[in-house]
Amino acid sequence: MRGNTFGTAFRITTFGESHGAAIGGVVDGCPAGLALDLAVIQAELDRRRPGSTPLGTPRNEPDRVEFLSGLWMGEGRPDGKATALGTPIAFIIRNRDHRPEEYAQLKDLYRPGHADRTWDQKFGLRDHRGGGRSSARETASRVVGGAIARQLLDLQGIRVQAFVSQVGDVHLERAYAEMDLSAVWQSDVRCPDPSTAERMIALIEAVRADGDSVGGRVSCVARGVPAGLGEPVFDKLHADLGRAMLGINAVKGFQIGSGFGAAGMRGSLHNDAYAIDGAGLRTASNRSGGVQGGISNGEDIVFDVAFKPPSTIRLAQAGADRQGRPATVEATGRHDPCVVPRAVPVVEAMACIVLADHLLRNATAMAAPFRPTTG
Amino acid sequence: MRGNTFGTAFRITTFGESHGAAIGGVVDGCPAGLALDLAVIQAELDRRRPGSTPLGTPRNEPDRVEFLSGLWMGEGRPDGKATALGTPIAFIIRNRDHRPEEYAQLKDLYRPGHADRTWDQKFGLRDHRGGGRSSARETASRVVGGAIARQLLDLQGIRVQAFVSQVGDVHLERAYAEMDLSAVWQSDVRCPDPSTAERMIALIEAVRADGDSVGGRVSCVARGVPAGLGEPVFDKLHADLGRAMLGINAVKGFQIGSGFGAAGMRGSLHNDAYAIDGAGLRTASNRSGGVQGGISNGEDIVFDVAFKPPSTIRLAQAGADRQGRPATVEATGRHDPCVVPRAVPVVEAMACIVLADHLLRNATAMAAPFRPTTG
Amino acid sequence: MRGNTFGTAFRITTFGESHGAAIGGVVDGCPAGLALDLAVIQAELDRRRPGSTPLGTPRNEPDRVEFLSGLWMGEGRPDGKATALGTPIAFIIRNRDHRPEEYAQLKDLYRPGHADRTWDQKFGLRDHRGGGRSSARETASRVVGGAIARQLLDLQGIRVQAFVSQVGDVHLERAYAEMDLSAVWQSDVRCPDPSTAERMIALIEAVRADGDSVGGRVSCVARGVPAGLGEPVFDKLHADLGRAMLGINAVKGFQIGSGFGAAGMRGSLHNDAYAIDGAGLRTASNRSGGVQGGISNGEDIVFDVAFKPPSTIRLAQAGADRQGRPATVEATGRHDPCVVPRAVPVVEAMACIVLADHLLRNATAMAAPFRPTTG
Amino acid sequence: MRGNTFGTAFRITTFGESHGAAIGGVVDGCPAGLALDLAVIQAELDRRRPGSTPLGTPRNEPDRVEFLSGLWMGEGRPDGKATALGTPIAFIIRNRDHRPEEYAQLKDLYRPGHADRTWDQKFGLRDHRGGGRSSARETASRVVGGAIARQLLDLQGIRVQAFVSQVGDVHLERAYAEMDLSAVWQSDVRCPDPSTAERMIALIEAVRADGDSVGGRVSCVARGVPAGLGEPVFDKLHADLGRAMLGINAVKGFQIGSGFGAAGMRGSLHNDAYAIDGAGLRTASNRSGGVQGGISNGEDIVFDVAFKPPSTIRLAQAGADRQGRPATVEATGRHDPCVVPRAVPVVEAMACIVLADHLLRNATAMAAPFRPTTG
Repeated sequence: MRGNTFGTAFRITTFGESHGAAIGGVVDGCPAGLALDLAVIQAELDRRRPGSTPLGTPRNEPDRVEFLSGLWMGEGRPDGKATALGTPIAFIIRNRDHRPEEYAQLKDLYRPGHADRTWDQKFGLRDHRGGGRSSARETASRVVGGAIARQLLDLQGIRVQAFVSQVGDVHLERAYAEMDLSAVWQSDVRCPDPSTAERMIALIEAVRADGDSVGGRVSCVARGVPAGLGEPVFDKLHADLGRAMLGINAVKGFQIGSGFGAAGMRGSLHNDAYAIDGAGLRTASNRSGGVQGGISNGEDIVFDVAFKPPSTIRLAQAGADRQGRPATVEATGRHDPCVVPRAVPVVEAMACIVLADHLLRNATAMAAPFRPTTG
Repeated sequence: MRGNTFGTAFRITTFGESHGAAIGGVVDGCPAGLALDLAVIQAELDRRRPGSTPLGTPRNEPDRVEFLSGLWMGEGRPDGKATALGTPIAFIIRNRDHRPEEYAQLKDLYRPGHADRTWDQKFGLRDHRGGGRSSARETASRVVGGAIARQLLDLQGIRVQAFVSQVGDVHLERAYAEMDLSAVWQSDVRCPDPSTAERMIALIEAVRADGDSVGGRVSCVARGVPAGLGEPVFDKLHADLGRAMLGINAVKGFQIGSGFGAAGMRGSLHNDAYAIDGAGLRTASNRSGGVQGGISNGEDIVFDVAFKPPSTIRLAQAGADRQGRPATVEATGRHDPCVVPRAVPVVEAMACIVLADHLLRNATAMAAPFRPTTG
Repeated sequence: MRGNTFGTAFRITTFGESHGAAIGGVVDGCPAGLALDLAVIQAELDRRRPGSTPLGTPRNEPDRVEFLSGLWMGEGRPDGKATALGTPIAFIIRNRDHRPEEYAQLKDLYRPGHADRTWDQKFGLRDHRGGGRSSARETASRVVGGAIARQLLDLQGIRVQAFVSQVGDVHLERAYAEMDLSAVWQSDVRCPDPSTAERMIALIEAVRADGDSVGGRVSCVARGVPAGLGEPVFDKLHADLGRAMLGINAVKGFQIGSGFGAAGMRGSLHNDAYAIDGAGLRTASNRSGGVQGGISNGEDIVFDVAFKPPSTIRLAQAGADRQGRPATVEATGRHDPCVVPRAVPVVEAMACIVLADHLLRNATAMAAPFRPTTG
Repeated sequence: MRGNTFGTAFRITTFGESHGAAIGGVVDGCPAGLALDLAVIQAELDRRRPGSTPLGTPRNEPDRVEFLSGLWMGEGRPDGKATALGTPIAFIIRNRDHRPEEYAQLKDLYRPGHADRTWDQKFGLRDHRGGGRSSARETASRVVGGAIARQLLDLQGIRVQAFVSQVGDVHLERAYAEMDLSAVWQSDVRCPDPSTAERMIALIEAVRADGDSVGGRVSCVARGVPAGLGEPVFDKLHADLGRAMLGINAVKGFQIGSGFGAAGMRGSLHNDAYAIDGAGLRTASNRSGGVQGGISNGEDIVFDVAFKPPSTIRLAQAGADRQGRPATVEATGRHDPCVVPRAVPVVEAMACIVLADHLLRNATAMAAPFRPTTG
């Protein structure tokens, strides 16, 4: 009812306020026997960390994930990995870098563009410190869950890579297939094209100097997804991907394949023709974005996510107080001028969770696996 | 697991293949005592019917909804309405206009852009007649469910209206607030601006004459939504709206408020400043689209949905057969050149279902209603 | 929320009031490709029908199940069976034998032991005709769902058989393993031991002659259940079986294996010792009832269900009216003096649904099936 | 799918192995604004603790619950209570008293009556230390969740009290209404009748001296439950209570009201006649156990739970090893000869969770609360 759980067969529940004792989560449904490299999970978490790129907020949280359950630690397993027990994998990340005094002024203030007021409207109270549970800090738990999901996807040869494709009016023009996506993590702005990245960085620095913020777009590609994932009516694969992305803080839009561009196209151009290549039947183009009728078709899954500019800026804005009176808001603390570089691992994490969930859900689509030899 | 159910507290399950005995659904969670005008439900269904506008396919199905359960028929209730019993409201719509011979050729054919092949890949078999369950005919059941939800929303003064805002390269330029949205149903193309509608219609007719199809966009406004709806982490109000829309056939994108445009904006421009008017605290602009932090803020909820052009066209296309060999596809039957006019009631229906669901879910957000007087 | 759906991976939603247009259900999650013998489903439904044994109510409903969706009818499939499409299997059973005039007196009456008053307390209104949705007629939909589930279990060699083990003070003393359970359907009272059956029938006839009713017990055995079914914490196999049974009308108790007898036993006697036989490791006894720690162990699953005597009797009773005033109740219509014979197929149906659900749920317990050869 | 979450509107997810880093849980759905006395929660947890009665295992875990999220700590709230934020309430209980060396022998051993083997059969591996997640230690998390639920029930005047009603062949013969149930916590064996308690204690001590164990029964009464709770078809109030109880370790049976005794009764005796008293319409007897047709009727809810004797005993038993070979098992560690005294708080906790869940679920049963004044 309160919507803190995501997924059906591979399921994550997250908890925690930005300035409470800890944030964390519980992953339920990870199949027993899966080998999990915990160092890799920590490394994925580090990519989302404030301070992971020079462009973000300097809030410096070590963000160490601590696993509490669900893992068998291996007793001399040669690869040093943990093994999933099939039971809930619970983890916490302690909150450390509290500066609650920075937030005291926010207790009775509604900042424009923030969830301050709607949270009060819904619950009658809120933890105002650092945004409480509405803080993007909550997404760290998703990154841990996504890193577990990814190790399940690895077994199937599924690889998920997101990257920044737009910051303000700077667009990445090159097609993803022409770039080396593995270069994403070398880029401070998480854009695989060096010259575009340079312009994005310049824009972000300019915006920061202005005391302002700027929006952007993250694109994501999933390769190696087998055909057949997605449930064709309400739980279409792209519907669940869309819900996952729209549930990330600051997201305002989602599109798959041709997306909003499809609205302007003719069918004769839009339809992906079938073609035969060495690997069998393929589609010659991929305007479907790898999903047809809600079900993956074996081509790359490609989608875009639009992020609004962060609401917190140094410039003065027309806010209000809890009594409904006008109140000027001028942020003084540390704030990201642009969230998209740090959103890249969150987009990947949610994509991994959706794909792992549908991979498991699909296990019962056909009667064959349950059939004895005489069936 | 198979994803044929939508919603948590207000929940619809749909069933049925396009050319099976019937399609239909079960609505569970409609509160007991709700008065339901069944004629209004049928009238909403009629708006989605093939033939409801001169622009669509001429397939002529009367599409009479038959209610099987969950209603008390009133015994002289003066307004002639039925009363919800609090039990599941099941309904069916018989399929009548079968021309299975038109579909015989499709049995072993994979049409470009269709779900023919992915369905086979997932389930190993499919009902090929008229697209089976992948047909947009399934959405008729959603319209019935939405019409029930809408009568629950009516009690709260919530009004949902969708309209066509784009067909191919013809865009509706006027803001919704400047138009009379009640004129939507008088427009064959479901666009409230007469001169834009005229150009849209001309484009659709030209596309039809070419044997081609064209995409479009539906926009939707929900007025009177109280603040507080939406669950702030995974089940954000716009995340559930997005999932609902992306689950409609042919949808490729969803955005709320400023949407993809937000990616190009600065925060100082994007943030909705607070303002006081006679009704109390408001936002001076509505780039948030009525949702902040995943929770409704009392402003209009505004979103857009992108539809691809229909896949079935008269022009020859490169398809394939079930054996993976090339096969030319040329549609001969009756087909919509543009789905967006008929998608308008489906968008409204899914929006109503999401809002009704969150209205009910929200009933337990605060302890107050459960508190006795001394609490 | 309203609880009309049962199951997670294999899921049934039922709908319908006893004297509405129809009752029915939707089965979601049946794997595609499963061959379904529809005549067998109808035959299972016939076993629950009023009039199926000479001991029940003479209400004579033909109870023909009509399938609306989810099945491919086979086009010359040599065995004449339908094939599951992987989509929702919807079905209805029309209500025919209405004698609403018999129920007019019940409109404002609360019968002792019935749900008349609690239904009003919960929903503010009810369909009083024949008990509305609180009627045991609803269980016919479960029998159809169970018959579908059973054909999935058949593929695994799982066989479920229930029987009457007690009527009033007449107890079946023989162990199930010593009897031919296939004789159950030849017995009017559904008891496999002829001499006990005779005494049960005599008791039921005597009770009927007295204008009274009597309670009883149904026992159930599931053979061939593979080890590993059941989720070990909240969704233990016997917890889900118990919930399924307690959800059947008139059920007051559930026990598995040693059941309430275990409360009086010592561990040295109760523990099932391990033993080796030709088939490998077994338990020498089966006080666990085939479930240990919530998970099936490969032994027979054995449980008992207690039914209260039917509330409706000819004898005068102290009821009340809707205004809270005393009102004598004397039933005049057709009523079962004992429900257990007709409850046998319902117990089996719910057991089949639980087992099919856990069979499918178990498909993702281990990572192995998802691992490629190099995993 | 893996079944580690319980409840619909008030929902608990538990995690943790007996000898992992911690056990704990996440409560989602607790309404915002609820005042929570954390000291009371700790006190309830203390009642379940090993060592809380002289009869149990001497394993001495301090079992301090640490809350991580979901609470506003009050800043000078005069009553010292925390306030629920409406967000997930996560908590952990660190595991401290590890003696893993005691469990080394169990690594390759299947103990009779335990979940050792079925866990391996399901997941392919298990954490053998102290039973891992199959240990009753997991129920400590339920007690915390139940203590939160109870403070929600307190607001409604609902009071839940369980007690031991049977140990081996010693039965509590007095009716609960004749005893002072508040005396339960003063009794080492959690039986409110002093002389019966004395005999129970003597039996447990004798069994312990024999190196054996003994079963028992816990009964539970919920007073002040308003009419209308429970969903009448699959999610009947007693079906959910039964599932909750059968999900507790070592439980073999559940009955409500007349329970298995109803199977032997006639309707004329069993039906609860209606009667008028000062409080309005009541039932003169309560064989229904407070639930009719799956819905609470306002009378006391009364049910019984049967526990088998603990499997671990000092006496030698016929076990097996992982290779399927016979292996004698003789427990040497610290073990409870009888679990029912320590099960009393667990039964209460699960009852509180079920009642809180249905209290919240019931909030949307009727349209009235959503109706504006003109509705």
